[in-house]
Amino acid sequence: MSSLVEKSFIVMVLTIMLVCSSVLATKNPIQESKPCKRLVLYYHDTLFNGTDVANATSAAVANATGLDKEHKFGMLVVFNDPMTKDHHLLSPPVAKAQGFYFYDMKDAYTAWFAYTLVFNSSEHKGTLNIMGADLMNDETRDLSVVGGTGDFFMARGICTFRTDTFQGDFYFRLKMDIKLYECY
Amino acid sequence: MSSLVEKSFIVMVLTIMLVCSSVLATKNPIQESKPCKRLVLYYHDTLFNGTDVANATSAAVANATGLDKEHKFGMLVVFNDPMTKDHHLLSPPVAKAQGFYFYDMKDAYTAWFAYTLVFNSSEHKGTLNIMGADLMNDETRDLSVVGGTGDFFMARGICTFRTDTFQGDFYFRLKMDIKLYECY
Amino acid sequence: MSSLVEKSFIVMVLTIMLVCSSVLATKNPIQESKPCKRLVLYYHDTLFNGTDVANATSAAVANATGLDKEHKFGMLVVFNDPMTKDHHLLSPPVAKAQGFYFYDMKDAYTAWFAYTLVFNSSEHKGTLNIMGADLMNDETRDLSVVGGTGDFFMARGICTFRTDTFQGDFYFRLKMDIKLYECY
Repeated sequence: MSSLVEKSFIVMVLTIMLVCSSVLATKNPIQESKPCKRLVLYYHDTLFNGTDVANATSAAVANATGLDKEHKFGMLVVFNDPMTKDHHLLSPPVAKAQGFYFYDMKDAYTAWFAYTLVFNSSEHKGTLNIMGADLMNDETRDLSVVGGTGDFFMARGICTFRTDTFQGDFYFRLKMDIKLYECY
Repeated sequence: MSSLVEKSFIVMVLTIMLVCSSVLATKNPIQESKPCKRLVLYYHDTLFNGTDVANATSAAVANATGLDKEHKFGMLVVFNDPMTKDHHLLSPPVAKAQGFYFYDMKDAYTAWFAYTLVFNSSEHKGTLNIMGADLMNDETRDLSVVGGTGDFFMARGICTFRTDTFQGDFYFRLKMDIKLYECY
Repeated sequence: MSSLVEKSFIVMVLTIMLVCSSVLATKNPIQESKPCKRLVLYYHDTLFNGTDVANATSAAVANATGLDKEHKFGMLVVFNDPMTKDHHLLSPPVAKAQGFYFYDMKDAYTAWFAYTLVFNSSEHKGTLNIMGADLMNDETRDLSVVGGTGDFFMARGICTFRTDTFQGDFYFRLKMDIKLYECY
């Protein structure tokens, strides 16, 4: 009889330890290598050159300043750019990127972005809000996904930029690797 | 005696299950229908028309671009607008909305907002920081509450816009339904 | 025998209560007085005056509007400013602050900031993304740290501004007290 009670104690203690460990696990559940959701998309920016109203999807609203005209310091661009699943500008867009960027460096290029990815397809409805520095000299650079709505309700995560191509002053393409670590 | 030990086991197992379920509940505590805090406020934007310094609370700092002047593509407005509890512009403001928006669409209207709600009343002291797309064609659209300070320390949530009225080029009013899902 | 089973019950109940309390503790782990990481840095803004290309680190991209030229309503400045550990402008910068601010008040000064702190030293690599209102009349004012990358992966917190000096129109210095409450 006594041994049965002892067994009961052992089982109890083990179960409590199991519960405790699961509690600790919930405290810090985010691992960089394990996003709860991942999307890889291409961003196409076609800057208005003054005449190409039909194809342009972005426009400068403030010009570069005298601080460094060559590297466009201060030039601010508002965009409403297509996001596609592959490299091709004319592939059907799966989202729109609505927001702005500006250049913010002397003697080299860096930019700063804040924008919303607007999804409105059969696959996804909702938005992701993103901001951060685009350190164009780095091969990849990380921005923050600071919020989401709809299918991405309350999401947070990281959006990694990689320059895919740069064609003169009026077209560039970024690969955006979006990893969400908070999904609801 | 044996039956008493069995009862002890049953009670133990049930309690463990109860604890486990509460652990799982804490893992994913956010439900869209159950904000931990909710505020419904009205945002009044009175744009400076060049002469009305006394009443205007916002001003364009960049003009619309040639990409689509009709839909004001690129026009960027800085605001310090009153927030009231009801529709009336002249009701006592319970907060100020400080930030900016710009228009970012060809052939139709959409805008993009980033701003801070500054509360300084007996009811609330602190700020909420909000950003996202204002898809003006939709009846309601969701932006992200990405942070908060003071009474809203570390808050996150959703701010739902609804157009309340649009009166020409110089006054519009939005209903903002602010739902917080992280409260501390 | 019976008393041993009773003891087993009491121990069980106490342990369950202990587990429950630890579960509740994990639900709300953030305390304003206990950041998981803290950094105090100084931000130096040297505005381009039209000629000082060598030393200036920021430039106005939109001018003040007619709504209140005296308090610079609407003036928008893009910056790439050094962050140092002490007051001295010429101390080795430990980070760069890349982003923008604008003035947004009639009859007094307030500003609105959104920017990224870019760390690239032996001590820290990564970024912090910050936005919020700079209510310049208050001795201290809190902005939101809305995300982070690299060493600051997925961070959130509060950045408290304090004006350290204001020297005419072209130089000011802020003390930024950065407290993170979510660290991974």
